[in-house]
Amino acid sequence: MALNRLKQAASHVTGQTEPPHPLDPLSEAEIEKAVAIVRKEHSGLFFNAVTLWEPRKAEMMAWLKDPKSTPRPHRCADVVTIGRGSKVYDGVVNLTEGRIVGWALTPNVQPLITMEDLQIVETIVRKDPKVIEQCGIVGIPPEDMHKVYCDPWTIGYDERFGTGVRLQQALMYYRPHVDDSQYSFPLDFCPIYNADTQEIIHIDVPPVRRPLSKAKPNNYHAAAIEAEGGYRTDLKPINITQPEGVSFTMDGRTINWQNWKIHIGFNYREGIVLSNITFNDKGNERPIFWRLSLAEMVVPYGNPEHPHQRKHAFDLGEYGGGYMTNSLSLGCDCKGAIHYMDAAFVNRAGAPTTIKNAICIHEEDAGILFKHTDFRDDSVTVTRARKLIISQIFTAANYEYCVYWIFHQDGTVQLEIKLTGILNTYAMNEGEDLHGWGTEVYPGVNAHNHQHLFCLRIDPNIDGADNTVFQVDAARGSAEVGSAENKYGNAFYAKKTKFENPVQAMSDYNGATSRTWEMCNENKLNPYSKKPVSYKLVSREVPELLPKEGGLVWKRAGFARHAVHVTPYNDSQIHPAGRHVPQTSGEPSQGLPAWIAANPNANIANTDVVLWHTFGITHFPSPEDFPVMPAEPMTLLLRPRNFFTKNPCLDVPPSYCSVPSGVKQGHVLVDKISKLAFGDEQSGSCCKK
Amino acid sequence: MALNRLKQAASHVTGQTEPPHPLDPLSEAEIEKAVAIVRKEHSGLFFNAVTLWEPRKAEMMAWLKDPKSTPRPHRCADVVTIGRGSKVYDGVVNLTEGRIVGWALTPNVQPLITMEDLQIVETIVRKDPKVIEQCGIVGIPPEDMHKVYCDPWTIGYDERFGTGVRLQQALMYYRPHVDDSQYSFPLDFCPIYNADTQEIIHIDVPPVRRPLSKAKPNNYHAAAIEAEGGYRTDLKPINITQPEGVSFTMDGRTINWQNWKIHIGFNYREGIVLSNITFNDKGNERPIFWRLSLAEMVVPYGNPEHPHQRKHAFDLGEYGGGYMTNSLSLGCDCKGAIHYMDAAFVNRAGAPTTIKNAICIHEEDAGILFKHTDFRDDSVTVTRARKLIISQIFTAANYEYCVYWIFHQDGTVQLEIKLTGILNTYAMNEGEDLHGWGTEVYPGVNAHNHQHLFCLRIDPNIDGADNTVFQVDAARGSAEVGSAENKYGNAFYAKKTKFENPVQAMSDYNGATSRTWEMCNENKLNPYSKKPVSYKLVSREVPELLPKEGGLVWKRAGFARHAVHVTPYNDSQIHPAGRHVPQTSGEPSQGLPAWIAANPNANIANTDVVLWHTFGITHFPSPEDFPVMPAEPMTLLLRPRNFFTKNPCLDVPPSYCSVPSGVKQGHVLVDKISKLAFGDEQSGSCCKK
Ligand SMILES: [Co+2]
Ligand SMILES: [Co+2]
Repeated sequence: MALNRLKQAASHVTGQTEPPHPLDPLSEAEIEKAVAIVRKEHSGLFFNAVTLWEPRKAEMMAWLKDPKSTPRPHRCADVVTIGRGSKVYDGVVNLTEGRIVGWALTPNVQPLITMEDLQIVETIVRKDPKVIEQCGIVGIPPEDMHKVYCDPWTIGYDERFGTGVRLQQALMYYRPHVDDSQYSFPLDFCPIYNADTQEIIHIDVPPVRRPLSKAKPNNYHAAAIEAEGGYRTDLKPINITQPEGVSFTMDGRTINWQNWKIHIGFNYREGIVLSNITFNDKGNERPIFWRLSLAEMVVPYGNPEHPHQRKHAFDLGEYGGGYMTNSLSLGCDCKGAIHYMDAAFVNRAGAPTTIKNAICIHEEDAGILFKHTDFRDDSVTVTRARKLIISQIFTAANYEYCVYWIFHQDGTVQLEIKLTGILNTYAMNEGEDLHGWGTEVYPGVNAHNHQHLFCLRIDPNIDGADNTVFQVDAARGSAEVGSAENKYGNAFYAKKTKFENPVQAMSDYNGATSRTWEMCNENKLNPYSKKPVSYKLVSREVPELLPKEGGLVWKRAGFARHAVHVTPYNDSQIHPAGRHVPQTSGEPSQGLPAWIAANPNANIANTDVVLWHTFGITHFPSPEDFPVMPAEPMTLLLRPRNFFTKNPCLDVPPSYCSVPSGVKQGHVLVDKISKLAFGDEQSGSCCKK
Repeated sequence: MALNRLKQAASHVTGQTEPPHPLDPLSEAEIEKAVAIVRKEHSGLFFNAVTLWEPRKAEMMAWLKDPKSTPRPHRCADVVTIGRGSKVYDGVVNLTEGRIVGWALTPNVQPLITMEDLQIVETIVRKDPKVIEQCGIVGIPPEDMHKVYCDPWTIGYDERFGTGVRLQQALMYYRPHVDDSQYSFPLDFCPIYNADTQEIIHIDVPPVRRPLSKAKPNNYHAAAIEAEGGYRTDLKPINITQPEGVSFTMDGRTINWQNWKIHIGFNYREGIVLSNITFNDKGNERPIFWRLSLAEMVVPYGNPEHPHQRKHAFDLGEYGGGYMTNSLSLGCDCKGAIHYMDAAFVNRAGAPTTIKNAICIHEEDAGILFKHTDFRDDSVTVTRARKLIISQIFTAANYEYCVYWIFHQDGTVQLEIKLTGILNTYAMNEGEDLHGWGTEVYPGVNAHNHQHLFCLRIDPNIDGADNTVFQVDAARGSAEVGSAENKYGNAFYAKKTKFENPVQAMSDYNGATSRTWEMCNENKLNPYSKKPVSYKLVSREVPELLPKEGGLVWKRAGFARHAVHVTPYNDSQIHPAGRHVPQTSGEPSQGLPAWIAANPNANIANTDVVLWHTFGITHFPSPEDFPVMPAEPMTLLLRPRNFFTKNPCLDVPPSYCSVPSGVKQGHVLVDKISKLAFGDEQSGSCCKK
């Protein structure tokens, strides 16, 4: 860290900076430069994205292996622009050479909707005569149009309008007062907005009308809580401090912590991208994952009535998990000793903008790491665990997604996602039969059933790029009870199915067999177990995609049809629902299904592969989730199996250690701060043992 | 708390104590009294257990409802004693009346093995000539018998010896040095010990011998870590403090925290027992669970070779989760501001003994409770969560089980179990084919496949005792894609199956449908959703019982055949594998299968029911788990659904709150302690917003 501070200090003095790590996101200056280079040759464009065009893996790996004698990968920008008539141009700008190296009109696609794109719609909607008319029908007079709000969504796909014109659908709400939660007052009609002409081109109106609810506002802000008796006063503060500083160091965007080394990237689509993840195994820096990211997600809603089938947001591909990310704040989003990183993007006009504190990095105590007591003599070792958390929170209209990448000392990587924010809601009449497609969470408010399905892209690098994926099921021994081989019937084993090609690798979850998937390096066996070194995907929140085969969501969200897909590595395959997601028809399906269909027999054994894992939850709303939802967690683990020759965190200082012989044990990490809740002395402390 | 302290102070001065809560565990004085009462009438007995005989539910509920005019339930002791010839006497002693109210010889059963029972075996084994002979065969000379150790287990069931004689099997190990981990040096033979005569009656010797491993010791104590380069020095302390004290209060053993009220009991079998759990819903104290406990568990091992089928410990029923519990220490097992509770038991001789600090109670920060940002103007509410953790750790020979009962502010109850300690190991020859039944985790060490299956006993009391259990599956709408009812194929709903009788209620997990189980009160509908108030069991670590139908474990561990059983409430049905578990043959199966068979058509709809949930993990060992295992977590949730009319924790003070109108929001819980990792100022703090 001292070195890093010196570097920063030096750059302030000299104006010189170290060249960025090839995987670092583009800086504001680089974004400016990319825009300037584009503008030299092309005019009349709005900028949709200017982001790092990541170095090709082969080039990058070669450079990492021998940075002295290998050319440094050039800095390149991946550029998406929109011209008049919803014309989309995709380009690559080589910043090192200062020139455009790729530029093309991409026909019949729509790039994602930016926050700026979204912001415009509400203004248009409020002025549109047909919208004002519909508002009148549900009971909102024209003079109250400033109380009408909309959450603009991509249209998903609507066969009446196709892909050619850039569209949004406006989910309509009402606020009696500017501070009221609009989600308690959904409106029943849905205007469709043309982003190119900036006008409302159609309004979907249901056959049965649902006038504006007359229920009381349902808020969670301070005034509302005050009115109901005020905040609780019985919650005493918990303080978390690290008086000697944090246990991690930063070298640029590469973090070092407890044997882990990780490059922390960020882009407008995936948000946090973790690359070149290694673990120092007694001096040997062993590669584990080349790249980890949330690559896509889809939130299909389960109400089949028109036009709710259009509610199936691809929040990453259609809006961007980076673009929607929150600026985090100390003591609120993050507690303890925090290191933040900012995120730079381009705006519509081509200027760089920055979200401060987009990424939060901190440590947490993680309970007991390991413990064992010998029952003979009560000799004991107890060691506390620490975890490192790299996190972001993004707001997708009504919902917030809190994404925590958690690293453990035992070599485990955990991805935890917490869902909070507000339910998407729709209007209902009193006593209306919801047919099981939704729940009345407040008078007049129908919250539709939905799923939150995430696609985790895992590019394994388990002691090298050549890996193989096995499906692992707990299985009973085949011999019958009473037979010589299985007399008492207790035989069971781990049944492993090797994945040879992408079609065979399309696999679903099986809770009954505790199914896991192992990413192995078959070229390297654990010296003890003689099994390939591996990392195991342990994921238990793996619902099936509920929209039916052949239906709209099934077609568009091909990645979600199976819990696991495996494909051969390809530099251009990052986005499993396609590069440009809005208004894809799903005919043919983009992304994963297309890649697999193009080469169904590709070899995926003992080669460079990518594992795509879809997981999530099915959410049947209830009143407890409203007017704002207590965070609902889901989690998955990537665990080393046969990777190490022993528990890799035995050298974490124990809190307490005693041995049968009574020989004094040193170097214990004593916590003298913990106290008895109602006592004066540390009478329970191990220090007194 | 002040009141509580006064009460305690008063009792010190006057020698008078408040009468215990009827659900409080027996005190040392009460145990003494129970033993004295028994001794007046019966002699020559060893005491196996003297524990609270819980008041009958009807009596207890009546008293709670109207304690002034209802007789206080008597204090009674549930007594298990063993006389000569392994004769077992079960009794009930009424302490209030000072008399025995039940006493009977229970034929053909064996009560659990206590820690004292276990401690004896190693001494006997070391002196036994046949054991010394076997040690010689595997390479341990007679003068080294002090280096021979054994983990005595109940024998499980061995048809050669039956149930009549009290037996243990001694899993044999060797320690080159007293401080070495014995689990790296398993021996290949298994003596059987008669607890009545205190002698070895048989030794199981495998057909192929496996001499003592010559591998180096494999330790995790300080000396071993020093020899490998010492402990890490890069872990900086994290301090957790509550300068204003904790947010909970204790009234005897009843805790009050964030609307929760819970009586915390403890017994030798189940360990922590939580009773009369209520949630204060805006002044209305609503019952949720009458009683929660881990009632049983089983750890079947998957190697079918004789005599490994006997390795399937019922750690609660055969040893006692209370008896094996650790005395916890501040700053090591528990961090922060801790309240401990002790646990009193009887010893073999009839004297009371106490485990200090058996239960740990503390709060933790729990990340974000809820958050929402309005994308229009960045107005935001972010509120941090707190959780209350009531925990214990017990050591079952090689393994440790850390049990955390976690209460959340949103009404969720979470049970988290962390597994640590040491793998059970068996000897192997170099190059031996393990047939997939185990893994070589260190040279010469075979760790057999196994499952850890826990049975959670849930006695729901959802707004009253009359409850109904529904199985809930996410299901696709029945109409086809393209039909008028489901044109786009996106229809899905929560399919609910009502459980009417215990046979129909035997249900398995289904990961594909995200199966949950809802405990409902059909007599009380949520005013908004019109659905019954309920709590939902969300549990995702639910492997099938892998030992086969008709086999030994399947017969003995009937509770583990299904993820969920539901039975009508019965005061005497606490132990799902039976009251006395060791040496049950499973013919017929004890506990749950017997209760259900006795009344398969019993009504379980809208009546007082108990839900038994078996969950856990299947463990295929790997070298990372050795020589001591990094904690492996598993968790489940009990979540309110349609129980509250809104998010019940809206009154938790936010960390930050702003509204679109800009009206100042007060009462925020500001954390001024959190800091930037590498900065001097709180530049990221929300306080500056
Ligand atoms: Co949801
Ligand atoms: Co295990």
